[in-house]
Formats: sequence, C-alpha cells, structure tokens
Amino acid sequence: MRRTAFFVSDGTAITAETFGHSLLTQFACVDFRQIRLPFVDTHEKARDAVSLINRAAEADSNRPLVFSTIVDGEIGKELFACNGHVFDMFSTFMEPLEKILGVERSPRVGQAHGMGNAHAYEDRMEATNYALTHDDGISKKLDQADVILIGVSRSGKTPTCLYMALHYGVKAANYPLTEEDLEQPRLPVFLRNHRHKLFGLTIDAERLAQIREHRRPGSRYASIKQCRYEVEAAESMLRIEKVPSLSTTDSSVEELASRILLELGLQREVF
Amino acid sequence: MRRTAFFVSDGTAITAETFGHSLLTQFACVDFRQIRLPFVDTHEKARDAVSLINRAAEADSNRPLVFSTIVDGEIGKELFACNGHVFDMFSTFMEPLEKILGVERSPRVGQAHGMGNAHAYEDRMEATNYALTHDDGISKKLDQADVILIGVSRSGKTPTCLYMALHYGVKAANYPLTEEDLEQPRLPVFLRNHRHKLFGLTIDAERLAQIREHRRPGSRYASIKQCRYEVEAAESMLRIEKVPSLSTTDSSVEELASRILLELGLQREVF
Repeated sequence: MRRTAFFVSDGTAITAETFGHSLLTQFACVDFRQIRLPFVDTHEKARDAVSLINRAAEADSNRPLVFSTIVDGEIGKELFACNGHVFDMFSTFMEPLEKILGVERSPRVGQAHGMGNAHAYEDRMEATNYALTHDDGISKKLDQADVILIGVSRSGKTPTCLYMALHYGVKAANYPLTEEDLEQPRLPVFLRNHRHKLFGLTIDAERLAQIREHRRPGSRYASIKQCRYEVEAAESMLRIEKVPSLSTTDSSVEELASRILLELGLQREVF
Repeated sequence: MRRTAFFVSDGTAITAETFGHSLLTQFACVDFRQIRLPFVDTHEKARDAVSLINRAAEADSNRPLVFSTIVDGEIGKELFACNGHVFDMFSTFMEPLEKILGVERSPRVGQAHGMGNAHAYEDRMEATNYALTHDDGISKKLDQADVILIGVSRSGKTPTCLYMALHYGVKAANYPLTEEDLEQPRLPVFLRNHRHKLFGLTIDAERLAQIREHRRPGSRYASIKQCRYEVEAAESMLRIEKVPSLSTTDSSVEELASRILLELGLQREVF
C-alpha cells in the first residue's frame, strides 16, 4: 500500500516532519512517500501547497496525510480546504494548553527552529567548533570538554560528537584508541585526569571491518583479524577502567547522543 | 510565571521534545523549565518518571506539563497517573490515523530516531564524512557534492553543511572566499563548473567582526574595515554571478538548511 504524507509548516517544517514521521513509523506495512513543505507563510504559498496535495490525491487515488504545524490561523484554514486528511498539532493542543496556563498564546512563526535563545544558539555553534577542533585526538587539551568519546578508529565517535554539539551545545571531544594505546590494558595517561567525562564507543568487529574496507580496501587496517584484535583490546580496557560504553553497531547517533547525555548527567536546557 | 515541562518517551525523546518545545514557544510570557526523560521503557522507569513529575508539581505548587510520545500502551498508562497535565501525541493521533489507513498500527518503540532505513542512515553517515573532508576548501574535488556553500570566512558555512549532512544525507561541501578570490568580481575558476550547486552565505559585517574578534582578538582579520570590505566584495560577486544566497545573521542552521534544500530542489526522502 502506498500513501503520500506531507509535512507542512510556516517555519522550517522540522517539527511537522518529526511529528508526522514518528506517527508513520508505527505503520510498517505502509509505504509512505514523504514530502516536506517548509515556509508556507503566505496565502499564495498555502494555495500552492493545497494544489500539490490535491494532485497527489488524484495520482494516488487516495487522500494524502497532511501533518501541519502552521502557526498562523488564517493560513492554516486555507490548508484545511485541501483534499487530504489534515492532522494539525497546534490547533489540537493549543486550546487545552492555553486553559492550563491561563494565558493566551502569542502566535509566533518559526520559533521552534529559529535562533530562539541567542545565548543557547551561540553555545551550540561554539560547541560545534569545539567538536571539530577536538575531533580524532587532534587536541589533547581536554579541560573544556563536557564529554570525551573514546574507541577504536571508525567506531562512530565523530558523528556522535557533532550531533551532541550541534543539538545540545555540549562540548564533545573524541580520541581514537590507537594500536599503541591498546598494547596496555590501561587508559592512556593523559585521559586519566578526565575519567568522569569519558564514554566508550564500541562496535562489532565484523561491522567495523566493513566500514574500514569501504575506506581503505584490502588494507591490514580493514582486515577482520585486526578489527577483532582492536575491538577486544578496547572493550577489555573499557571494562578494566570502568568506563561506561555503548555499541554503535545498531544504534543511531540520535540514540547514542541521548543515552550518553542521560548517563553522564548532561541534561542541558538548551532552548 | 514559571512552569516545569517534561518531555517523556520510551525512545530518545527527541520527538517529545520537538513536539512539546514547539508548543511552548508560543507562550513567550511563561518561563519554562524543560526536562527530557528519554528511554522510559519499563514500568519501573515509568514510576521513576511519575515521582520526578510529582516532585516538580510540589516544588512549583503547579502541575507540570508532560509531553509524551510513549509508544507502549501499558507504560503510557502508568505515566497518566502522574500529577501533571499529560499531552500524549500518540494516543491523540493514532486512532484517527488507523481508521484512515484502514490498518492497525504495529507498535514499535524507538523507530523515529533509530537507525530506521539502514541505507538512508548510511547515507547520512557518509554525507557527514563528506562534509568533514570537504570543509573549508580542503578539497577542490567537488564532483560528488550535492551543494557547495560559499562565503567569507566565519559566515556560518561549516555548521550549515554539517546539519544538512547529518540530518538529510546531503553531501555538502563549502569553500571560503579568500581575499585573493575577492579581488575579482567573478567566481573562482574551479567553481564555475559547479554553478548549479552553489549557494552563498552572507552576514552583517558588524556581526562578522564580533565572531572573528572572538577567534583572533585585535587582528586585521577581525577589524570592521576588513569585514566590511570582504562582505561587500562577496555580496557583489554573488549578485553578479547570480548565485542564490541567504544571510546567516538572524537565521539558525535549521532555517538555513531548510531554505537551501528547498531552493536547490534537494528534497530528499531520507527516512
């Protein structure tokens, strides 16, 4: 079964996409074509969106699903005229929320993913810069780090650091455990002072070999023997040194970031 | 007015946070303390969450707002027993969605921000690696790029590229327009073949000077005179070469990424 789903917003449509996509993941048997329509912030653009939705309805012989987070009431109304099933997050929850809070909302478009709190936004940008300049062991000056990910080369440290920095303003450094480091079962000396900030990432040796093979085909670095040796040595070090760790084999960067922030107690309020 | 808001989920809580935070941005007059409770996936953790919420209710003398995306019905019920106002995205929209689709949902925890489609996830990781190895003009081999951001140093190119890569699997390179490039009003030669992939980022000279001052205090590089010269020359080049552009002065990376993908027609389906 094939259906089209639209994520429509007068802002970036990131909320609409997150909201709609989450619901759709619960219907594994349906093949959804998912289309994002951001910045629908004029009546003209709303009419364009309605045309698009109506054309999809005809092409599919099935009314599309429309997940909307349009803030502007008048533009929102325009959308409701489309030949689709509209799920509107704002109109559904706003009224009860106003009652509970005892204040009326002050409708503001594009707040959820705008600059918001300028200070928090700058923290995110600074953290991203930090992650880039403290990636892959480039810098051993780790006093400013909120978290330091350690693991063998290609275990997924970099994207996880970037995600934590970009989204949560967390200063995340990472250090690759080298063959030399792995010759002894203890942490490299310069990391011992930062023990409380350390988090290990590990990975199945088979998956690691695949990833490395893609990078350096036929190399010793990518051989299953080498990958097994490194992963075993790294896991043993993490165990002996009691560094908390997670496997990246079946976890997304979003899952890893959420778990690491939870375990290290780095639950920043970043908005 | 101060209120506590909880974002609760049996997964990463990214959807719950996005959903709740979006609604809360519409109440600028209220000071919300926002707390994320991810991975509430057992009855025990649900009871812990309820305790936390109830303690906040007592401390605030006000029932907290609770935005939930718990998928598991039984665990969800447990949460509803808390002394907070629970807004449940799944239970609100799931029933109408099931009726429309004519199929029952197959409840699956942690799908929204899990690995999902493994192929799409690998694309995101590969694109992130691409962004890192094609950052700041490191590589002039840009055939594989989906988009190439150009602009003066510190105009916001890197975080925007990383966001597009990490979220949308878009291969985003960036190239800093150097003083030498800016001496002539035309695009650097090696960029001319990639004209259709180019997107300019610009910024107010005053803001740029601030950012550069933070990086290299007292330098010619950070002087307002230099910043004005570079920004004017870059904007003139973008205009003459008809490269679409955006200002990063008041836009977040989320807004920039959404607009760039929309304007270049890079509306990938990444799920």
